[in-house]
Amino acid sequence: MPTHPAPSTPPPPPPPPPPSPAGVGAPPLRVGMVGHAFMGAAHSHAWRTAGRFFDLPRPVELTAVCGRDAAAVAKSAERYGWASFETDWRALVERSDIDVVDVCTPGDSHAEIALAALAAGKHVLCEKPLANSVAEAARMAQAAETARAGGVRSMVGFNYRRVPALALARRLIADGRLGRIHQVRAQYLQDWLVDPQFPLAWRLRKEQAGSGALGDLGAHSIDAAQYLTGQAISSVGALLETFVTERPLPASASGLSGTASAERGAVTVDDAAVFTARFEGGAIGVFEATRFATGHKNAMRIEVSGSLGSIAFDAEAMNELAFHDRTEDSATAGFRRILATEPEHPYAGAWWPPGHLLGYEHTFTHQVRDFVTAVAAGEDPHPSFAEGLQVQRVLAAVEASAAALGVHIPVDAPGTR
Amino acid sequence: MPTHPAPSTPPPPPPPPPPSPAGVGAPPLRVGMVGHAFMGAAHSHAWRTAGRFFDLPRPVELTAVCGRDAAAVAKSAERYGWASFETDWRALVERSDIDVVDVCTPGDSHAEIALAALAAGKHVLCEKPLANSVAEAARMAQAAETARAGGVRSMVGFNYRRVPALALARRLIADGRLGRIHQVRAQYLQDWLVDPQFPLAWRLRKEQAGSGALGDLGAHSIDAAQYLTGQAISSVGALLETFVTERPLPASASGLSGTASAERGAVTVDDAAVFTARFEGGAIGVFEATRFATGHKNAMRIEVSGSLGSIAFDAEAMNELAFHDRTEDSATAGFRRILATEPEHPYAGAWWPPGHLLGYEHTFTHQVRDFVTAVAAGEDPHPSFAEGLQVQRVLAAVEASAAALGVHIPVDAPGTR
Amino acid sequence: MPTHPAPSTPPPPPPPPPPSPAGVGAPPLRVGMVGHAFMGAAHSHAWRTAGRFFDLPRPVELTAVCGRDAAAVAKSAERYGWASFETDWRALVERSDIDVVDVCTPGDSHAEIALAALAAGKHVLCEKPLANSVAEAARMAQAAETARAGGVRSMVGFNYRRVPALALARRLIADGRLGRIHQVRAQYLQDWLVDPQFPLAWRLRKEQAGSGALGDLGAHSIDAAQYLTGQAISSVGALLETFVTERPLPASASGLSGTASAERGAVTVDDAAVFTARFEGGAIGVFEATRFATGHKNAMRIEVSGSLGSIAFDAEAMNELAFHDRTEDSATAGFRRILATEPEHPYAGAWWPPGHLLGYEHTFTHQVRDFVTAVAAGEDPHPSFAEGLQVQRVLAAVEASAAALGVHIPVDAPGTR
Amino acid sequence: MPTHPAPSTPPPPPPPPPPSPAGVGAPPLRVGMVGHAFMGAAHSHAWRTAGRFFDLPRPVELTAVCGRDAAAVAKSAERYGWASFETDWRALVERSDIDVVDVCTPGDSHAEIALAALAAGKHVLCEKPLANSVAEAARMAQAAETARAGGVRSMVGFNYRRVPALALARRLIADGRLGRIHQVRAQYLQDWLVDPQFPLAWRLRKEQAGSGALGDLGAHSIDAAQYLTGQAISSVGALLETFVTERPLPASASGLSGTASAERGAVTVDDAAVFTARFEGGAIGVFEATRFATGHKNAMRIEVSGSLGSIAFDAEAMNELAFHDRTEDSATAGFRRILATEPEHPYAGAWWPPGHLLGYEHTFTHQVRDFVTAVAAGEDPHPSFAEGLQVQRVLAAVEASAAALGVHIPVDAPGTR
Repeated sequence: MPTHPAPSTPPPPPPPPPPSPAGVGAPPLRVGMVGHAFMGAAHSHAWRTAGRFFDLPRPVELTAVCGRDAAAVAKSAERYGWASFETDWRALVERSDIDVVDVCTPGDSHAEIALAALAAGKHVLCEKPLANSVAEAARMAQAAETARAGGVRSMVGFNYRRVPALALARRLIADGRLGRIHQVRAQYLQDWLVDPQFPLAWRLRKEQAGSGALGDLGAHSIDAAQYLTGQAISSVGALLETFVTERPLPASASGLSGTASAERGAVTVDDAAVFTARFEGGAIGVFEATRFATGHKNAMRIEVSGSLGSIAFDAEAMNELAFHDRTEDSATAGFRRILATEPEHPYAGAWWPPGHLLGYEHTFTHQVRDFVTAVAAGEDPHPSFAEGLQVQRVLAAVEASAAALGVHIPVDAPGTR
Repeated sequence: MPTHPAPSTPPPPPPPPPPSPAGVGAPPLRVGMVGHAFMGAAHSHAWRTAGRFFDLPRPVELTAVCGRDAAAVAKSAERYGWASFETDWRALVERSDIDVVDVCTPGDSHAEIALAALAAGKHVLCEKPLANSVAEAARMAQAAETARAGGVRSMVGFNYRRVPALALARRLIADGRLGRIHQVRAQYLQDWLVDPQFPLAWRLRKEQAGSGALGDLGAHSIDAAQYLTGQAISSVGALLETFVTERPLPASASGLSGTASAERGAVTVDDAAVFTARFEGGAIGVFEATRFATGHKNAMRIEVSGSLGSIAFDAEAMNELAFHDRTEDSATAGFRRILATEPEHPYAGAWWPPGHLLGYEHTFTHQVRDFVTAVAAGEDPHPSFAEGLQVQRVLAAVEASAAALGVHIPVDAPGTR
Repeated sequence: MPTHPAPSTPPPPPPPPPPSPAGVGAPPLRVGMVGHAFMGAAHSHAWRTAGRFFDLPRPVELTAVCGRDAAAVAKSAERYGWASFETDWRALVERSDIDVVDVCTPGDSHAEIALAALAAGKHVLCEKPLANSVAEAARMAQAAETARAGGVRSMVGFNYRRVPALALARRLIADGRLGRIHQVRAQYLQDWLVDPQFPLAWRLRKEQAGSGALGDLGAHSIDAAQYLTGQAISSVGALLETFVTERPLPASASGLSGTASAERGAVTVDDAAVFTARFEGGAIGVFEATRFATGHKNAMRIEVSGSLGSIAFDAEAMNELAFHDRTEDSATAGFRRILATEPEHPYAGAWWPPGHLLGYEHTFTHQVRDFVTAVAAGEDPHPSFAEGLQVQRVLAAVEASAAALGVHIPVDAPGTR
Repeated sequence: MPTHPAPSTPPPPPPPPPPSPAGVGAPPLRVGMVGHAFMGAAHSHAWRTAGRFFDLPRPVELTAVCGRDAAAVAKSAERYGWASFETDWRALVERSDIDVVDVCTPGDSHAEIALAALAAGKHVLCEKPLANSVAEAARMAQAAETARAGGVRSMVGFNYRRVPALALARRLIADGRLGRIHQVRAQYLQDWLVDPQFPLAWRLRKEQAGSGALGDLGAHSIDAAQYLTGQAISSVGALLETFVTERPLPASASGLSGTASAERGAVTVDDAAVFTARFEGGAIGVFEATRFATGHKNAMRIEVSGSLGSIAFDAEAMNELAFHDRTEDSATAGFRRILATEPEHPYAGAWWPPGHLLGYEHTFTHQVRDFVTAVAAGEDPHPSFAEGLQVQRVLAAVEASAAALGVHIPVDAPGTR
């Protein structure tokens, strides 16, 4: 089983990104990444960059990237800075010079790859949603729990937890600044499917994507809502809709290009998902995930209202957190626009002076920082596979509710899928 | 049955507000208003002011106001400019010098007063929601339809239709600028009940208020959604919640003051209502009405997404409409902040130069303008009682769905209440 | 000297707006207004409305309005609710049934009318800017001081002081919440002159308007800056510009309609004025007033930065005040969006519940409330003519500096004009 | 002249960042950077990252970094990914394996280093402002012009030109979408000096920093204004102010830490600079640069108003451009919030899908991309040293005007400094 060096990088592999002082002498964490599309680019940047801005306890090595098309993956290895590449993920998982497997493929292969990696004793970072079904996710959570006994760590890639403004919101809520949580309103609004001629990409096929806006976008909202409130969702009442039921097949195999062919196929996932929710701690919520919100490109918005205060966030202005403190004098109370770029804010101190913004990719760099820190400390990173499973259960309950005309379905109902 | 002149205004009643040129010589429209609290103050201002800024086809007279407490209503008559007052609404309804009955009481008396007024041949303007039940609302709509044959007009007071920015949104949608409507997201967020010591006002008692945030706030959102999209809601799946189930009884009878007594009583309405919806034309929606959204004072927000564009509105910035036009070049597309104060905008030309803002009370002045214009022209003003009945059906379906664990209930289901 | 009753209102004049309880029995304050265009409409509404929402210590009567064109002023009297009209302001000033003269004419007649009114023992409310020159303003301030000894009150109409959000800002600064004031940045942005075909209205002629954007818009900014900071401007360095130096003459005499004729005339005022300033207390400022800020309709913006905090305001969102409190923990500090509609906010308690917006015209109603309150109490209303004179001196210094290539000119320089 | 390898990276130097396809086989561009503080960190990231996202025509090598303190610079080399380090910038400039010298030191050493580098035939990227005086800047521009004949390129680091939203603004203006430019309003607001106990860092000493807020912040505004409008500033009238004239000396030599000692020293630069300006094409402008704008962290704001449209930008929301198109119908016109993350937007296509934000550091990555592209193509990158000199002349004229009580000083006045 040959290992391919990255084409243009000659024999001596690139030296490790320099370890931080704390990491000097610590064994490097050697990463193998499966998948090299949009998420692969973001993850590569994060693995390359985390040690440049954070004092990582162990240096990181970009050891290998894996993709099915040799030419394409070779190019990605070169472009993104991976020392070698593989064309079979099983080969990558079994390499002895890999400590971490980073799963960046579509959801239908998450379970298989992650289970194999855990079985091989690799730490696993798996993109969200954890899987395409509760059954798969349950197996993964079980495997993670088993592997944990052997010191193997696992984590799901809900990267929005690593937005400084949202991490700050979590801290405020955990500190009691919002009091008893009453309500959550969460929206994840995109609009790339409004054009009915947009082709039938893999994200529109149930067998690969699991679901549509629900799993792709709603999963982020669900995780954020549970993370921020510290409450699990206990039941949901939902409605799913597919506005455009047939689309042209993509001209290219990847379906990424946006070019359409003359043939058409059925869209088998939701274009939009809306649902109400109850949380175990007494809060209620309302959620919307859609790819038809014309004019909104990536409006991942969430508001949490409590007895003592509220927060509001919108990813299209991701450096800002709106915070209302009800204990203020009513003459001067109001939502504060906190620019989460102060040294006191989560992650922000590692970057630029106050007022200098961070972007989307920083969330992945922060994710690497937290993952490496936990692995080095022998602690469990979060969100765990068990947390990913809980999100998966909510997604399944949403689909079950939608199929049952919206009646509230408990998240722990047996056989929700 | 004596008619009381307003105390400090001597025999000759105030002259009519000057008719506009078009209205010169036209018989005045003589108004009797029942109820003189918050809504009464707003309506009085509107009746007094409409003819000062708009060319009304008939002059308006503030003939009589009615309230149960003689001293209080006498004071209101004087304060708000009514020529006389009554203490029994039946007396007011039967006065021969009254052409219009304006119903500003709590919802439990709407039906009785409006039915009597219609029977007496008076035009009726009734505050929203139309009634406290579908049965009442149906009787009212039936009576309005009957009275219409005799030239008697009726209208429900969904004043948000008269916000220039929302009227502009309606025009854009009617003109096809949004294309096919896919989605509605509507929130009506207030926070005056977050304090658990806030007393048990009449708005928190089902027998008087009908419902809580749902009927008070949600009714506005429902009407706005149906008005903007031109689509009726066909089914809803809902969840209602009362976070604080017991509150101190109000110290004063009116319960308006916010002062609490030591005794406590049960809250019998919802604090928050959330629901998903299907519209007859294929759109879907998600709604939230709450009095627990800490930090939000009157955030009546609505967004509509269509195949060609989107609009967004928030009553806390009520002079603005956000509009996204998907037919623009993508390099320069974006939500435009339209300040709806141009002469071209609905109602705005009657007021100040561009950029000079209007406020909450202007919606009532616009309502009077539209009502008087329709009455003078012998046309039906909108929203009609039939439209008010449709909103009532949606409210009933929301309650029925909530009672049935959120299963989607058709709005036209027999016996929804 | 005949007094004309308003045409369609028969003999018995309209009864006074009902006095508030506190005002019952107090003699009415009988108002005569000179000028009945845009400002006249706003002032009429305010005189009519103040007693409906505020407990005025004396009832207000709209006794007479004055304009040169009898037909036009008769129509305005009827439309705006004035009991009679005059065509010669001298007649109005001398009427024994007038207590207050409200000057709403262009700036070139302010001095003459106000001086005559003060000489006749009338209280005077004069629109801004106080006059078209320092010499005139100085005479007016002197006359006001003299009349004051006889209990006669005078006030300049800088209505932005009565925006609740700005009055709140003043309160915060007066309470020390901003600490030592360092900087002011003020902009007043409109765009109605961008079209070079817009006709040569009176506001574009120096002999009538005094100056252009400077006096019309900049005067508001100057007053607001001095009012908020409590510091007088001591010197200015300025630049004035007229981008379009020739325009079509207006087709109508008033020049208000926007219709243009074929003939052209010279623009003799500034289109835009920009200047830096020093304040007597050590602050510095930067000001811009323009009618060429494409897209801005009435963006009267001001920010004040101090050692302990900052405020920011924009009249296009006039219900909001942004406030930054530097004493907050830096992790949660940020500009708060205060919606100035709480009962605790200046003026707001008289109107609607929190979150229900006020508009442009409310500033005039608040002005009437403050003026009547001061007159009834025998106290001096603010801003006084002396304060108006100080603004006039700054305007003159701006023009002097611009003429001297921008060199800083002290505001108290002798013979600045 | 020894060359130090970076401490923990053993003999074989790191391979070059992989060339893009276009760059395959092209000789690498070997970079030496002088200075390794805040700017050095940003530049390092950019040199490391540009080739990962853009198809660079030549691969980039981070060959050497230079700093006076060997231990500190060794650490930086390791941290930021430089293959070796120097402690004497002259050594770096003379190394034969260096093609580009990147000057990231304080302004007082720019001239000396850049002149030496140009003389040695190195391409130069120099941080802004170009120098601490016009004389220095003029020598640098002259040297750049001379070197250019030999194919040597030079560029000043006005990184805000590389914000996608501002580059888009430039494109709109160049395309005529704003028509004739009338006005510029520019503010650069920070607040890190409000605390009078903040120590006397090098940026507060004239001999090192040249000027205060003026050169540090105002230089960006000046460059942006000239870049956007395509017009040079021709004269300025200014006022400079130092609010806190004495500060504690920094405890550490670098003065960066914010820790203060007991001794105090004089602040010899401006805390705030405000000025009016005329542009050669007829526009006027107003500028403010300050470190005392409490609550503003990095509000680099600029608005440009033209006869056909306007743009507005604020670096605290740097992914957004507000654009007003006056050719739109007035009923639907309004400032559009363009989220400059579309593939059609400058630079944005290389990064993430629409709606996913970029941050501060991306401006440096884009700068590297443009610099490398120009060098490889044998073209002049912009802004050139001549453009940097023009900014320096404006800065000098501002200081001259402030010294002359604000009188407007022509930018090309002989001997402005």
